[in-house]
Amino acid sequence: MSEEINIGIINISDRASRGEYEDIPGKAIKSTLEEYLTNDFATVYRVIPDEQPQIEETLIEMADRHKCCLIITSGGTGPSIRDVTPEATSAVCEKMMPGFGELMRSVSLQYVPTAILSRQTAGIRGQSLIINLPGKPKAIRECLDAVFPAVPYCIDLLEGPYLNVNPSVISAFRPKGS
Amino acid sequence: MSEEINIGIINISDRASRGEYEDIPGKAIKSTLEEYLTNDFATVYRVIPDEQPQIEETLIEMADRHKCCLIITSGGTGPSIRDVTPEATSAVCEKMMPGFGELMRSVSLQYVPTAILSRQTAGIRGQSLIINLPGKPKAIRECLDAVFPAVPYCIDLLEGPYLNVNPSVISAFRPKGS
Amino acid sequence: MSEEINIGIINISDRASRGEYEDIPGKAIKSTLEEYLTNDFATVYRVIPDEQPQIEETLIEMADRHKCCLIITSGGTGPSIRDVTPEATSAVCEKMMPGFGELMRSVSLQYVPTAILSRQTAGIRGQSLIINLPGKPKAIRECLDAVFPAVPYCIDLLEGPYLNVNPSVISAFRPKGS
Repeated sequence: MSEEINIGIINISDRASRGEYEDIPGKAIKSTLEEYLTNDFATVYRVIPDEQPQIEETLIEMADRHKCCLIITSGGTGPSIRDVTPEATSAVCEKMMPGFGELMRSVSLQYVPTAILSRQTAGIRGQSLIINLPGKPKAIRECLDAVFPAVPYCIDLLEGPYLNVNPSVISAFRPKGS
Repeated sequence: MSEEINIGIINISDRASRGEYEDIPGKAIKSTLEEYLTNDFATVYRVIPDEQPQIEETLIEMADRHKCCLIITSGGTGPSIRDVTPEATSAVCEKMMPGFGELMRSVSLQYVPTAILSRQTAGIRGQSLIINLPGKPKAIRECLDAVFPAVPYCIDLLEGPYLNVNPSVISAFRPKGS
Repeated sequence: MSEEINIGIINISDRASRGEYEDIPGKAIKSTLEEYLTNDFATVYRVIPDEQPQIEETLIEMADRHKCCLIITSGGTGPSIRDVTPEATSAVCEKMMPGFGELMRSVSLQYVPTAILSRQTAGIRGQSLIINLPGKPKAIRECLDAVFPAVPYCIDLLEGPYLNVNPSVISAFRPKGS
């Protein structure tokens, strides 16, 4: 029996949602996951504006209806008035995972001192791990490379599908005896 | 007059509380504290399941009734549905101390990339410092070694007992002039 | 037309507010900003006790009435019962900026292991960036040096005045194409 794997990708951007910007971040996340994972997986994919109720609704739909084991957002994590992705994420999660944001900011700090302006976080809703990424394609890859080694084991702990990675691209760490 | 020192230790684990696992984490914390401290101290010791109301009750009892200056928990800090120790800790604390969790995760990250899955935190209830540790004995020691140098001064600031450490095992830092 | 720049400085200290201590922290922040910035700016300056309602009121007044683009507090960030600056800051902000506290603690940890006791944070109220600094003059400079390179761009994102820094003292990073 092959287990069905759904992964949600949400590009949160006023301008991309109006078609003024090409959806580069969403595509970058999708192609990065295709490089990482040797499993087949289906993506549930949305490009939406920086509206907190719509972000919350989309996260809930992906978690509860589409049973995505992993939901990755890009954008809306800065200090601007329209940046509300972390607030939407906290609002729908039962548990917050502060270690993801800490690590992503500390990795980005190696490149730019403005990394501290990024408010990205991660959390758990039901059996879904939700991770906020920044909006810039370069930062997306840096951040995913940093946190992804912990993602397959996190999904194991949430009793989700068993993710296999391509070890020439990324490692996945599962503690022995767990 | 010798001041009475009470320290709370709580092993939070469904399986240990049912006797299916030996209580290794609680014992590891106790023996580590005996190595660190040259003071005599009494421990208030519990092994309880991952039930948020019971964790909160136990923390409150140790802080308010037993006047523990320090309460250390192990376990229940991961992303699994039964892991609720950080939520119970926040619920009973007046002040959160994010620096403890940040430092413990950053130390654990030197060993395992899954350190970011640990949601452990620390906080203050009344005159008690509550610190969450992970459940694995190796990680317990790594985390305590990292944060303990700040613990005696924190307890000074809470007007608790004056803790003395064995300098050949661990250091305790107290800023000059404070 | 030259844009008016207001910066709020609040020394939060029971003893300084009663005149028992000289207001060294507030002056240290002001002289540091004068070294950093080549713009002319006006300061709105207060020395107040560690009373949460009064701290909140002062932050609100500086943000909403005086339109300060930047408000810097010192003191009240430790674990003591009177330390309530982070709670007052969260209470008046719409957005929290966890990266500031993380970076400041990680910089201070290079000097003292008790850096993890510092609960300082930053947040946004309207168009004002509020940053909590510790109370000790040496730590104030270390912390400001660490986070300030991200401050001018943060204020750009909040549509505030364009801050110019003296590059021989501090750098200001603004991502290209932003």
